[in-house]
Amino acid sequence: MKLYDCKMAPNPRRVRIFLAEKGLDLPKVEVSIVDGENLKPEYLRVNPRGLLPVLELADGTRLDETVAICRYIEDTHPEPNLMGRSPLEKATIESWQRHMEFDGMAAVGEVVRNSIPVFSSRGLPGVAQPVPAIPALVERGTNSVKRFYERLEQRLSETEYVAGNRFSIADITALCAVEGAMNRANLPIPAGNKNTQRWYAAVSARPSAKA
Amino acid sequence: MKLYDCKMAPNPRRVRIFLAEKGLDLPKVEVSIVDGENLKPEYLRVNPRGLLPVLELADGTRLDETVAICRYIEDTHPEPNLMGRSPLEKATIESWQRHMEFDGMAAVGEVVRNSIPVFSSRGLPGVAQPVPAIPALVERGTNSVKRFYERLEQRLSETEYVAGNRFSIADITALCAVEGAMNRANLPIPAGNKNTQRWYAAVSARPSAKA
Repeated sequence: MKLYDCKMAPNPRRVRIFLAEKGLDLPKVEVSIVDGENLKPEYLRVNPRGLLPVLELADGTRLDETVAICRYIEDTHPEPNLMGRSPLEKATIESWQRHMEFDGMAAVGEVVRNSIPVFSSRGLPGVAQPVPAIPALVERGTNSVKRFYERLEQRLSETEYVAGNRFSIADITALCAVEGAMNRANLPIPAGNKNTQRWYAAVSARPSAKA
Repeated sequence: MKLYDCKMAPNPRRVRIFLAEKGLDLPKVEVSIVDGENLKPEYLRVNPRGLLPVLELADGTRLDETVAICRYIEDTHPEPNLMGRSPLEKATIESWQRHMEFDGMAAVGEVVRNSIPVFSSRGLPGVAQPVPAIPALVERGTNSVKRFYERLEQRLSETEYVAGNRFSIADITALCAVEGAMNRANLPIPAGNKNTQRWYAAVSARPSAKA
């Protein structure tokens, strides 16, 4: 297997952390999104959607979607479990994983794609045609990130990790969303959000967070 | 089990079709999104996110996310299989299911939430605070729906169903996205998209499509 990767992008990072938690280290092909390499013909032959990451299997089959890649890894390398065992645990983790995507990743993406100069005509990932930044989305996205932080704090006042009392894929998505908010959208964890800070200190100290 | 439902909304419909394919018929509680019932205290006690659908299990546990609900149903009622059997088939179906969400559902939502008068200050689902419609998103979303149709046509020129040669959850998401585009965004399947029309005739004729 090999991974088409982009060091600075959040979705490839989710897969790198997932692989690191499984103890897997794959060969990687770096594709720079900032330089627009993902929209050039060479990469579009790998993934016509222009998105990263892509997992290429030994027989050349390619999986082109972050969570689908994680599920394939989970099914073929079941331990440590990151996506649940019983039907209810699986559904709970999936639910929180998706909340972290929609509450967190999508909101941060809305701010970043509409405020950072390199994306001024690249408002949507993977789209080669010009998509102008929409300034009103910076405000809307900022408000959504605030709601994300409120809900995350509420949740982490009830449970140790995002989906319950053990680490899961939901924490990986949340970590990438929080670090995107901090580092790309200038929206750090609010000072009063003590449970989120406790959780962030724990998950960012795991060896996988260096991936 | 019972389902908190909303007849006119696309995500509850995805779950209703999924249940119908499994031969399940659950008691339903109708919550009107158009009338804003999802944002009122009574429903916020069921789901603080203000979103639909919610599946309530016999013991009162609630699952509040569309695909997590489907996965719980799949795991507890495995036949007919709608989410894959082998690791590769599961990942392929998940990948296409998510493409249909991001390419299709999200794009249609962007058009609908920013163009229909009832949503003029409800630009994001489940948010009680006013979120003004952003007119530029109607154009951006319309262009995204066009790309969705192009990619869907390309895919359906290669395979009978969205995720391969049998019906899956990816077709359910695609059906709800296409019908949203047609019926709420005034963006019907383009006349030249013969494979999409062939597929739409087949999936919309299944008994589950009446759910």
